[in-house]
Amino acid sequence: VPALIEIDSDGHRGGLVPDDPALLGIAAVLAGAGCLRGVMTHAGESYGAVGAEAQAAFAERERAAVVQAAERLRKAGLACPVVSVGSTPTAHAATDLTGVTEVRAGVHVFFDLVMAGIGVCRIDDIALSVLTTVIGHQPARGWIVTDAGWMALSRDRGTAVQAVDQGYGLVCADDGTLLPDLVLRSANQEHGIIARRDGAAAPLPDLPVGARLRILPNHACATAAQHDGYHVLPAKGGTLAYWPRFRGW
Amino acid sequence: VPALIEIDSDGHRGGLVPDDPALLGIAAVLAGAGCLRGVMTHAGESYGAVGAEAQAAFAERERAAVVQAAERLRKAGLACPVVSVGSTPTAHAATDLTGVTEVRAGVHVFFDLVMAGIGVCRIDDIALSVLTTVIGHQPARGWIVTDAGWMALSRDRGTAVQAVDQGYGLVCADDGTLLPDLVLRSANQEHGIIARRDGAAAPLPDLPVGARLRILPNHACATAAQHDGYHVLPAKGGTLAYWPRFRGW
Repeated sequence: VPALIEIDSDGHRGGLVPDDPALLGIAAVLAGAGCLRGVMTHAGESYGAVGAEAQAAFAERERAAVVQAAERLRKAGLACPVVSVGSTPTAHAATDLTGVTEVRAGVHVFFDLVMAGIGVCRIDDIALSVLTTVIGHQPARGWIVTDAGWMALSRDRGTAVQAVDQGYGLVCADDGTLLPDLVLRSANQEHGIIARRDGAAAPLPDLPVGARLRILPNHACATAAQHDGYHVLPAKGGTLAYWPRFRGW
Repeated sequence: VPALIEIDSDGHRGGLVPDDPALLGIAAVLAGAGCLRGVMTHAGESYGAVGAEAQAAFAERERAAVVQAAERLRKAGLACPVVSVGSTPTAHAATDLTGVTEVRAGVHVFFDLVMAGIGVCRIDDIALSVLTTVIGHQPARGWIVTDAGWMALSRDRGTAVQAVDQGYGLVCADDGTLLPDLVLRSANQEHGIIARRDGAAAPLPDLPVGARLRILPNHACATAAQHDGYHVLPAKGGTLAYWPRFRGW
């Protein structure tokens, strides 16, 4: 089994710090078994870094950690062909990738509201949405009820800890135009509840039963995992393509 | 299309209140089209009711609402063969189902930590767990890292608003024995982080890399939806059965 040694670049989760005394011993065992391919890290803490400057600092921290670990291996006479980093905020902010051979950014293929919330993309860049239909209203509460709840959107509330809480998602017309001041306020298993954002000036728009809307997700990875595939809109219109998803363990 | 009219029994989400003036008009339209089968409700607010007495009160509220609506239809000369209620807390606490023809409880087939947290079941009654493997440790932080993150467990944090927050789940040995004072403290996409509960007296148990554990979920519906099927343990042991899940829209 080809193996990379995980390096802890920011204290987020797993791996060895680059100067961990155990690194060379582990590498020697893997090399002896013919498995060692290199080192990898994931800058999980960069998802809390707001703005390109803070993200660039994380990118450099990520790079420095794996390059330092790779150099320790090479000085010990071990080959380290793969030096891998990976996180969407750092992939977009990195200014120097010297010594890195692989960047494993993931959510950048779609972007989402969490990424928009830390300035990695604009809301208009988000390429994944859930198509839903208005199925009812509770006028006294200012609610528009849809048929996409958390089973379609996921329970991810990643923007809850950001400067702007986007609820369970933002609301677009079915052509993708953002409807201002609306938010998917809450989600039940198979129902979404759209309401005006707190402090919104505009009244609730007239979205009758049957109106189709698109919900932009907090976290594209979590939302996509609730579905078996993607219905892909060609840029110039025409027939939808269908891309099945890989699932399971 | 056979149709039930949704009745709002507790202000939780959708439907008409039983004495809504629009009820008979809607029923007449459906009956005229040959679609009307009856009335239904869901006591969504009962999930916040702690203990059998409070849940029984919700069960009576749920029953009274649909029975009142059904009687209005019948007095208007419309058939109402189906009078349907449905929520796991009320299904277990109801003492009188007079006039009800159907109970649509769902999560009761598995139970989960949310249901245990409001006294509908005991933790030992929970029949669904996610099998996971220990893949690492961060001793300085008191973390045991597993290979089941929120992609395997869901992002559901239903116990966060209950008296006891169970994190992303409780931890059992692979034979289902609860390991006291441990909680799945946090979850990344493909990693779970087990730690001692705040205030726990016992030290972190010795769970080496490769140890297999079972995680009891906050919400069985959400957790099951992350998987394509169930691996079913026969009560008397023997070969696992596999039950595929229905998925998609």
